[in-house]
Amino acid sequence: MNLTLHAMQRSANCYKVRLALAHLGIPFVLKDVDILRGDTRTPEFLAMNPRGRVPVLQLGNGTILIESNAILMYLGEDTRFVPEDKVERARMMAWLFFEQNSHHPSIGEARFWLSLIPGGRELKRDLVDDWMEQGEGALARMEAQLVASPFIAGENFTLADIALYANTHLAHEADLNLALFPAVRDWVGRVAALPGHVDMNWRPELVVA
Amino acid sequence: MNLTLHAMQRSANCYKVRLALAHLGIPFVLKDVDILRGDTRTPEFLAMNPRGRVPVLQLGNGTILIESNAILMYLGEDTRFVPEDKVERARMMAWLFFEQNSHHPSIGEARFWLSLIPGGRELKRDLVDDWMEQGEGALARMEAQLVASPFIAGENFTLADIALYANTHLAHEADLNLALFPAVRDWVGRVAALPGHVDMNWRPELVVA
Repeated sequence: MNLTLHAMQRSANCYKVRLALAHLGIPFVLKDVDILRGDTRTPEFLAMNPRGRVPVLQLGNGTILIESNAILMYLGEDTRFVPEDKVERARMMAWLFFEQNSHHPSIGEARFWLSLIPGGRELKRDLVDDWMEQGEGALARMEAQLVASPFIAGENFTLADIALYANTHLAHEADLNLALFPAVRDWVGRVAALPGHVDMNWRPELVVA
Repeated sequence: MNLTLHAMQRSANCYKVRLALAHLGIPFVLKDVDILRGDTRTPEFLAMNPRGRVPVLQLGNGTILIESNAILMYLGEDTRFVPEDKVERARMMAWLFFEQNSHHPSIGEARFWLSLIPGGRELKRDLVDDWMEQGEGALARMEAQLVASPFIAGENFTLADIALYANTHLAHEADLNLALFPAVRDWVGRVAALPGHVDMNWRPELVVA
């Protein structure tokens, strides 16, 4: 497919896409983007994605795709990571929307400011309590589901697991304690043990400057 | 399909689903849910949706679907509202995720607290500046797209227009001024003029207590 992924190594939204590509065995070229250095504010980057965010997936013909979960759907459609049944597919997508409207805005934001940005904890101290409350709520929702099924959308590993794993397995970097959510903690171990799994530090062979 | 929609009339996320059902000509039963009265906190409601949110779509066999945009995808798959082309479909979905991670959290939250909740403006005054900045940013992204294409995902009206119309046409209730975004304002008029459109007050014939 001749894919180029513009991504930041420590970004959870970017890791999702690398993890999906690794599971699917799709080769791709990585282009490192450092948002802390302003790489997403250059005219070249904004021409690709006016929102100035990573990840960006560039297809061989130059077509640009943005929004991590839309990229996951693009890559995962008609594979084992998207349920064939219409109701199961809608339920899997419900978790993808949950990930973007509840999980990432709390756990992902907290991780970003508390662990990635120097001085972020002080800068955003008014928001920390809210992040913790919302983040614990998001983990509690996952816990309730993962007590009932081995993966977040049911019996099988899907894109929803890939999307939610990224920030969840780093919850400690967001000041959240997975020991309080044992079914989530066990699921993190289950996902990491799957064949084809790669950890957050994993990079493909082909990297361009 | 024997659908029952649990919804609050003034909720933008609920209006999306009514609008999609109306465009698709799918009959459904409406069950009113008043979140201000605590209807989403009852044991019966939480058994349907542990997140305690509307809309909830109940299928004839009792199956429950949650998350407004996942419900839209369930209803819209294989219809003219979801592009057949894989890249176009991914781009349409990118707007659905944008709607949940940027548009609703700013414009939808602002509208909720500033226009629907008595005393909300005072209660949330620390957040208003951020909502305005984020909301204007979201409208600016839409403006840039709608200068280039008649609908948000291109030439055709899709689920992304349905999802984004709901809060956008009520931007004034969120203290935002669409006169500053003329392409968005024109698009609001274009969507409202489509055959099959229903306004936010529309209700189906069948309503249950």
